[in-house]
Amino acid sequence: MYVKVRVPATSANLGPGFDVAGLAVTLYNTFTFELIDEGLEILGCPEQFANRDNMTFQAFDEAAKKIGLDYKGVRIVTSGDVPYTRGLGSSSTCIVAGIVGAYAFKDRYEERREILNLATKIEGHPDNVAPAIFGGMTVSVMEDDYQVTTLSLPVKHDYRFVALIPPFTLSTKKARAVLPDTLDRKDAIANVSHLALMVASIINGYDHGLKLGFKDRFHQPYRGKLIKNFFPIMETLEKDERVLGAYLSGAGPTIMALIRADDTKGVVRIKEELGDLIEGWRVEKLELDTRGYTCDFL
Amino acid sequence: MYVKVRVPATSANLGPGFDVAGLAVTLYNTFTFELIDEGLEILGCPEQFANRDNMTFQAFDEAAKKIGLDYKGVRIVTSGDVPYTRGLGSSSTCIVAGIVGAYAFKDRYEERREILNLATKIEGHPDNVAPAIFGGMTVSVMEDDYQVTTLSLPVKHDYRFVALIPPFTLSTKKARAVLPDTLDRKDAIANVSHLALMVASIINGYDHGLKLGFKDRFHQPYRGKLIKNFFPIMETLEKDERVLGAYLSGAGPTIMALIRADDTKGVVRIKEELGDLIEGWRVEKLELDTRGYTCDFL
Repeated sequence: MYVKVRVPATSANLGPGFDVAGLAVTLYNTFTFELIDEGLEILGCPEQFANRDNMTFQAFDEAAKKIGLDYKGVRIVTSGDVPYTRGLGSSSTCIVAGIVGAYAFKDRYEERREILNLATKIEGHPDNVAPAIFGGMTVSVMEDDYQVTTLSLPVKHDYRFVALIPPFTLSTKKARAVLPDTLDRKDAIANVSHLALMVASIINGYDHGLKLGFKDRFHQPYRGKLIKNFFPIMETLEKDERVLGAYLSGAGPTIMALIRADDTKGVVRIKEELGDLIEGWRVEKLELDTRGYTCDFL
Repeated sequence: MYVKVRVPATSANLGPGFDVAGLAVTLYNTFTFELIDEGLEILGCPEQFANRDNMTFQAFDEAAKKIGLDYKGVRIVTSGDVPYTRGLGSSSTCIVAGIVGAYAFKDRYEERREILNLATKIEGHPDNVAPAIFGGMTVSVMEDDYQVTTLSLPVKHDYRFVALIPPFTLSTKKARAVLPDTLDRKDAIANVSHLALMVASIINGYDHGLKLGFKDRFHQPYRGKLIKNFFPIMETLEKDERVLGAYLSGAGPTIMALIRADDTKGVVRIKEELGDLIEGWRVEKLELDTRGYTCDFL
């Protein structure tokens, strides 16, 4: 018997919701876990990650200790489409899968709130792991002890998420280092007001509130400088009236643009508008994943 | 003919929604406006306010200039129950009424979005004037040019607002002066996350999210020091499981506690719990006003 866990990619730091808001998209990594007689076997990932430092294994091992799962060895096989280090939550898929894998061997894989707290503790912030666990669009409050309160937003309209994925990476560590430790009060108030508008607009289906609602002053002004063409791309998307909102996904460098499902030619139009600015970039049209992780026994 | 404008009291700075979130309550000021042959007559308010510096007149005059209302003189009569300088939006009732009064003489009293922009420009922030104009619970984003985007939240449950109104005042100017110009990033993130949780909880009827959702780090830690017994009162309210949330109303000193409508003995219980801490304070049980200002011709 082995356990198969599928975890969606996630786009966090939704506009002004730095460390708070995130959403799951229809792009997945899959992990299988099998208890073996001894040792650690990791298959399906680059060799430099196939060791005890592997994030999936680390999460599996920490979860196993927490719930008292004794095991002699484990074989982990990974596969999937979530790009690494692009701001689409690939590390969260590993962490969530590792925990769910261990919980599954104790038949506790549906304890999503406990899994959320543990995943947040390992990841350090809840905005990717929460939608990876619950699906949909989530807002999360993390208290000092990593206790997380997450609420899924009922999303009224059917949106599509156009992911503009650069050919280059941006390390989360580097992206964190450029952020200032303090903020002007007026910038803080701006983000509070924008996120309130965004959340209410998403729930009420008030699409006209989204462009302003997605504007951020916490991280995009700083991280944007690390990403080639970020500001001209954002200005171009701003002018497109059918782009409802745009933001830097996670720590970047992926840029996400929100369109309505009935804007069927949106990707073609966006590509044309951006032209050379995204030469060599991969463009994916994604939907909201509404299930979060799934777990099967095979 | 004269114009009669009724404006609800408002409670702004809802928890983490400093300068952003506000709500209208069932406590009103009423203003009548009559065009007269010359001069300014102000009746019904203390003598020191019965002059050209009067806020209602100032707003009336500014609005009249904006919309081209020529008038030789005006008589303003004010009455109502909204206490002054207590954090319940009495100045917003004056500003909104003055503008609506002038707009009414041009039959434009229903141009609420334009009235909102003008009222915000005069008041300096939108969180009181928005609910005074639209009613209900609102979130507002103010851009640099005082253009305001306001959204009314569909409030799922029937709440009551217990206003604890001290016998002393706190000037808005003094209350503004104690606020720092910069904030730690983690405090800014906390407020962003709390307001997102609060907005989503109010809309979804998730009452368990409100206590955390109402927590603030922008102004209450600073203003609380200026208000006698603020911190022990908040701690007592925190322990009451049927108090869903509590916050400093506007710039204070009024403290507002949120309970469910079916908690019919909530006020009695809160008074008992607080005992001497609120000796001499007025306690009002208010409902949400859902209409905003009303305007009649008589």
